Amino acid sequence: MAPLKSWLQINAKSHFSLHNIPFGIISTPDTPEPHAAVAIGEYALDLQVFSQQNGFSALSIIQPHQKVFSEPTLNAFAALGRPIHRVVREYLQSVFLDNGPFPDVLEKNEQLRKAALLPLKDCKMHLPMFIHDYTDFYAGLNHAYNVGVLFRGPQNALQPNYKHLPVGYHGRASSVVVSSTPIRRPNGQILTNLAAEKKEPVFSECKKLDIELELGCFVCKPSQLGEPVRIEDAPEHLFGVVLLNDWSARDIQAWEYVPLGPFNAKNFGTTISAWVVLMDALEPFANAGMANDTELLPYLDEKDRKSNYAIDLSVSLTTSSGKTTNIGKTSAKNLLFSFPQMLAHHTIGGCPFNVGDLLGSGTISGESKNEKGCLLEQTDNGKTEITLEGGEKRKFLENGDTVTLTGVCGSEEGALVGFGDCVGRIDPAVQLSF
Amino acid sequence: MAPLKSWLQINAKSHFSLHNIPFGIISTPDTPEPHAAVAIGEYALDLQVFSQQNGFSALSIIQPHQKVFSEPTLNAFAALGRPIHRVVREYLQSVFLDNGPFPDVLEKNEQLRKAALLPLKDCKMHLPMFIHDYTDFYAGLNHAYNVGVLFRGPQNALQPNYKHLPVGYHGRASSVVVSSTPIRRPNGQILTNLAAEKKEPVFSECKKLDIELELGCFVCKPSQLGEPVRIEDAPEHLFGVVLLNDWSARDIQAWEYVPLGPFNAKNFGTTISAWVVLMDALEPFANAGMANDTELLPYLDEKDRKSNYAIDLSVSLTTSSGKTTNIGKTSAKNLLFSFPQMLAHHTIGGCPFNVGDLLGSGTISGESKNEKGCLLEQTDNGKTEITLEGGEKRKFLENGDTVTLTGVCGSEEGALVGFGDCVGRIDPAVQLSF
Repeated sequence: MAPLKSWLQINAKSHFSLHNIPFGIISTPDTPEPHAAVAIGEYALDLQVFSQQNGFSALSIIQPHQKVFSEPTLNAFAALGRPIHRVVREYLQSVFLDNGPFPDVLEKNEQLRKAALLPLKDCKMHLPMFIHDYTDFYAGLNHAYNVGVLFRGPQNALQPNYKHLPVGYHGRASSVVVSSTPIRRPNGQILTNLAAEKKEPVFSECKKLDIELELGCFVCKPSQLGEPVRIEDAPEHLFGVVLLNDWSARDIQAWEYVPLGPFNAKNFGTTISAWVVLMDALEPFANAGMANDTELLPYLDEKDRKSNYAIDLSVSLTTSSGKTTNIGKTSAKNLLFSFPQMLAHHTIGGCPFNVGDLLGSGTISGESKNEKGCLLEQTDNGKTEITLEGGEKRKFLENGDTVTLTGVCGSEEGALVGFGDCVGRIDPAVQLSF
Repeated sequence: MAPLKSWLQINAKSHFSLHNIPFGIISTPDTPEPHAAVAIGEYALDLQVFSQQNGFSALSIIQPHQKVFSEPTLNAFAALGRPIHRVVREYLQSVFLDNGPFPDVLEKNEQLRKAALLPLKDCKMHLPMFIHDYTDFYAGLNHAYNVGVLFRGPQNALQPNYKHLPVGYHGRASSVVVSSTPIRRPNGQILTNLAAEKKEPVFSECKKLDIELELGCFVCKPSQLGEPVRIEDAPEHLFGVVLLNDWSARDIQAWEYVPLGPFNAKNFGTTISAWVVLMDALEPFANAGMANDTELLPYLDEKDRKSNYAIDLSVSLTTSSGKTTNIGKTSAKNLLFSFPQMLAHHTIGGCPFNVGDLLGSGTISGESKNEKGCLLEQTDNGKTEITLEGGEKRKFLENGDTVTLTGVCGSEEGALVGFGDCVGRIDPAVQLSF
């Protein structure tokens, strides 16, 4: 299929091609209340203005629901369900299509273009969803194996349960922040080498601050207490995907996580990209994902459904001197479980979901050295160093470091479906006195 | 101090004495929209009606805020802060006081009494708070020790971190339900004895369904990303306390919980009592709590502050035949860490809090056999049985079993400060076919 062509000039390398149409929450100096938009090329189409100025007049199905685009989150839009997301996205594609069916809506409507088509650089981005509950999984097989080798050796790298179910833990919803929010280095209890002998922790800023390259997926359909979501129904419960950086304090984690799992090592911040790429935009890139050599119980068996997405991912680190180094490239194909499987597992005991709940995939790593999704793996937990552009070295993150995750589906110019940046800069720890 | 005496007839054994005045969310056939109330004796004082009919006319400080009593949760009231909670509670006490300063408000106002003073039995109770994030700690020292002995033997019963910090994990907010909500037995992956040899799980309903006797504490003051709550400030962040039953699927937990902690074993339901007992109501019962033989880092050091509460707790089990057996009695004094310590630890790395966030204490057990807060401890993980009234036996919960937690401070008749029941009945698991 040739790329869809727009009357709007869109850079051929843009991640926000006409094939994408991701949804987000913006504000501008003129409209400071956060509200909905879609990204296209270098622009945001302000859906509040667009809907209020009759941009959806040709789409009768959305008429009763237009107020969702003035909401400060996408939850109300998401709650309309996937059939509505589909028609809205396809309608917006057709509005931007060169020689499309609706030239009068925007292309030839200079007033609306001027009012609703805003340069992205002028838009402030907000958290796209109100997230009631956030769960982080551990579905990146290579990451789980590598970390297991690091701490338990290759014989016992993967726990016995690992391939039978998507392992996960409840995360902290309150500290999920939108891309570009600074992340403060956490303080906490750690074992220094000296302290480790006595198992006596010291109070310290985190000295092993790390990233985790993940995908996040938002839920758009609620489910009730006591009612599992069947795996064949799970795709209709999914709204869209973002990049997710699960910042991790490895030294705090090492001391705290047995027996109840990671806690303060994770809850100081989780960054997500600002634009939600709808499931329909990802569908052309669907594939079967990793083979699981373990026979799954029926409630997790997707049969032949393809619900993994070939998303090319990368991590770059920009030091305070301004030099940027790519420190990892991998692919979302390295996930052993899909989001429908995660949701089916999460609800099998009856756990209820609300619209806007977030599922994290777990860290995604490939098999080779430069395909790692975290520094823990890249530096063998700080035993080795990576060398950055300009010669600086890193075991873990330093203050002033900015980490940028990117992700994109496809390689055809003019047809890329990407996520925009997922960015965070490390600020120094709070100085506390007692 | 002699018990406060009310003009309203209150049973001397009532947990809702004039010393208590707990807050909750009710609805009635006449006012089906959930709204605020306080409990007193066998009655609820409907605060929506009371405020709308000028019950607060003598309390000028609350005038601008009266709409909080018409909200469907207590979050807006909680957000007003502890000084306001204090004056509202004390004013309501004075309204009910025999020979009190405000006889015209209610005692001699038959119309308002009739409109606002409702028999508790006619009130439907709702979840008192919107809970954005729920965290469950593990601060019951005897419970942690007993469970540690069960799985690791007495030498390694407590993990090295246990006495240095309040161990906790992020729970699932969406499945926190109000007392009397039925709990459906979860399905999930478990290892049967046969399967355990091969480490091959089977799909099954939970066969080791358990309770956990806990306290919950609600937060009333938000804190920001990156900004720790200092331990000396933490008490002002706490709204009030409820009983909490952290239902647990022990067999699901055993298979899933390494390495990231409990997940589906917990997220199918957590029951809390309906009435929030304000911190001020608990203050007369404050004590220093358990001694910790480990020197704490300064950020957790409460110095001489007393923030443990001597709450007498009990668990009873009612079978479907209707017979009730007390299966455990203990005291909240068995907590090694206080709620201020939990909050100080939770925020030390910068994790933010919202009003309404819930902290669970962890299971509370005493040292002796009949002081256990869960069946796992009582039956040595199903190796022994307990015998109920009428001769029925239990290793874990059966369908139709109803578990009731109660808690009360003090023993003086007419001055009891209690929580009301925290009740849940076990419904059969969903029958699934694939």
